[in-house]
Amino acid sequence: MLPQESTHMFSLLKTDPHTRARRGVVHTSHGDIQSPFFMPVGTKATVKTLSQEDLRVIGSEVELSNTYHLFLRPGCDIISRAGGLHKFMSWERPILTDSGGYQVFSLTDWRKLTDQGVEFQSHIDGARHMLSPESVMDIQQCLGSDMVMPLDECSPYPCEYAPAQDAVRRTSLWMRRTREHFDKLGMRERGQRLFCIVQGSVYQDLRERSARELLAFDPDGCAIGGVSVGEPVKEMFEVLDWTIGLLPQNKPRYFMGIGLPDQIVRAVGMGVDMFDTVVPTRYGRYGTCFTDRGQVVIRNGQYKEDFGPLDPECDCPTCRNYTRAYIRHLFNVGEVLGLRLAAYHNVYYYVNLLRRIRAAIEAGEYRQFSQDYLGRYAAGSNKH
Amino acid sequence: MLPQESTHMFSLLKTDPHTRARRGVVHTSHGDIQSPFFMPVGTKATVKTLSQEDLRVIGSEVELSNTYHLFLRPGCDIISRAGGLHKFMSWERPILTDSGGYQVFSLTDWRKLTDQGVEFQSHIDGARHMLSPESVMDIQQCLGSDMVMPLDECSPYPCEYAPAQDAVRRTSLWMRRTREHFDKLGMRERGQRLFCIVQGSVYQDLRERSARELLAFDPDGCAIGGVSVGEPVKEMFEVLDWTIGLLPQNKPRYFMGIGLPDQIVRAVGMGVDMFDTVVPTRYGRYGTCFTDRGQVVIRNGQYKEDFGPLDPECDCPTCRNYTRAYIRHLFNVGEVLGLRLAAYHNVYYYVNLLRRIRAAIEAGEYRQFSQDYLGRYAAGSNKH
Repeated sequence: MLPQESTHMFSLLKTDPHTRARRGVVHTSHGDIQSPFFMPVGTKATVKTLSQEDLRVIGSEVELSNTYHLFLRPGCDIISRAGGLHKFMSWERPILTDSGGYQVFSLTDWRKLTDQGVEFQSHIDGARHMLSPESVMDIQQCLGSDMVMPLDECSPYPCEYAPAQDAVRRTSLWMRRTREHFDKLGMRERGQRLFCIVQGSVYQDLRERSARELLAFDPDGCAIGGVSVGEPVKEMFEVLDWTIGLLPQNKPRYFMGIGLPDQIVRAVGMGVDMFDTVVPTRYGRYGTCFTDRGQVVIRNGQYKEDFGPLDPECDCPTCRNYTRAYIRHLFNVGEVLGLRLAAYHNVYYYVNLLRRIRAAIEAGEYRQFSQDYLGRYAAGSNKH
Repeated sequence: MLPQESTHMFSLLKTDPHTRARRGVVHTSHGDIQSPFFMPVGTKATVKTLSQEDLRVIGSEVELSNTYHLFLRPGCDIISRAGGLHKFMSWERPILTDSGGYQVFSLTDWRKLTDQGVEFQSHIDGARHMLSPESVMDIQQCLGSDMVMPLDECSPYPCEYAPAQDAVRRTSLWMRRTREHFDKLGMRERGQRLFCIVQGSVYQDLRERSARELLAFDPDGCAIGGVSVGEPVKEMFEVLDWTIGLLPQNKPRYFMGIGLPDQIVRAVGMGVDMFDTVVPTRYGRYGTCFTDRGQVVIRNGQYKEDFGPLDPECDCPTCRNYTRAYIRHLFNVGEVLGLRLAAYHNVYYYVNLLRRIRAAIEAGEYRQFSQDYLGRYAAGSNKH
């Protein structure tokens, strides 16, 4: 457990001299996480195709799970009786859980949004449920996650100014109730830490308003939400550029749901500390693998008799033990091992990319690292 | 490589004083295998959901692959250019490959059987192919398997006497051509070893004739085929009882496609050395797990809040790290990790059961072991 008097969950170790990249540590009651870091996404208390032992060997210091999915199945009762999510899934390192708000908006066919909360029909059986700022805290208290996200209203893209403004208003209203309920439940005393989620769509004044209003509730960390919802990448980085400048230095900054490897490298240079995305596992399951020289689409006929490793520069078990031809065969015949080998490599690639990023910041060479990386990645992507 | 002059692939170390159980070693050019042993089935050059590292950690000394499937995909050319099946799939330990005959009979809609061989339509794309005793040797030479099976005609169940007799005749005819082609290709000199497959359905005189005719071709090992094709278990063990007495002591005996754990324990007591079955992986994928106290059907509601291990007596990673409630959740939400954890446990259970069997034979206590095991297993099976 963290000492109760601990006021900051983030220690800033170093700032890059030429970029806004930061090297730090996020403290949680299940251990420290060196930042910047990537959180593999274990939606249903499992990172698809990987085991928790795999994640430990890969070296991931943290895992993300989805409140919405776990609330529906297996439900809070079972996880509570297991002794919390860490015990339920046998993962003793830090866990961040989202609020479920994004899933309610993206997965359900029917929902009713009011200032009270959001009523919705489960995407599994159509049963009606309600998520409120308070119930989302109740659930995450039961899960026992180290990093807790509040219920927010995530604007879609594109979004007119008026509804984006209303989403900012409601997100602030909900943050007030979240803070009150989080405190009332004594979640901080149990070692849990609360983030806010800045909304405001693509409108700079709304982002400013959202950040200002949310920071008044003194969250432990700051997330930038409402990004990667379909907007052009250029616009996404503009939003990041405005918003990150509004966030304090002494709290970790989490760019939600981002992104491809080159996007992560760029975002770190702008001052982001935390990332999560299903990209490595989802792309892996479809046979697309990441390398410094762009993506390898392993089903392609060109790899039929390619007996080299998936990524010649990688030292993960997939790349040390298996050939492109073998992995392609596994995909061709629909064998689960193919998905697993590809997903393993991709998650390893992401976790290791963040390790390289941290080393570059420590060495004060992030600008050079970033330029080199983005150049090679773009050249490789054009080639494929 | 084995010395070319090596005449026997089998060393008999010990015979149990009270049963017909044998403790031995099967020698191959990719290493020795302690017998009796179980061969995990990697139909398409992968044991479903497991990696080759998993198999090594589990302690499997051998793996089985299917000629029919590999012939169709990825095809001999690719495996040959990879340097053989061991290199293609990154498995440096012994491999047994079947002949494809059984798959032609069980998987294809259309086939034409003559003394020449069997013409069939691929179950994948309907393309016509031909397997002959000679082509099956050509394919297995290309695969480079350590233990090679000849093309045989496997009688279905039930089967009239006349067609069963004709299958015995044809299997012997094919064995002659197999032997000639195996020798002509110099497969023995390359370290490959040839088995025969005794047929004869449920007819004792046909089994005797088949064994006599096939042994005349001096195979390195003897398989009992045409079992586990739908006949009652009692009848299967009668066939085993007749047939095993016809086989020489100095060659390994392989009971093809058998079986459930209690069947393996019984068959070892009758003198069987080698087993293969898809049971552990197939049952695992459907959530049925093996223990000494019978099967655990992990989807059952009774395990919803069961936070104990899958098998309290097992020390595999699944049982050391995860609970029944968690594995049940993974099956309920359709996550691949569930299949993998269950299959891992089951393959471990089989490999470890054979390890215990070998220890019991070494101690001269196989009769007691067998009685205890069968008693507990039956009691547990009745309970579930």
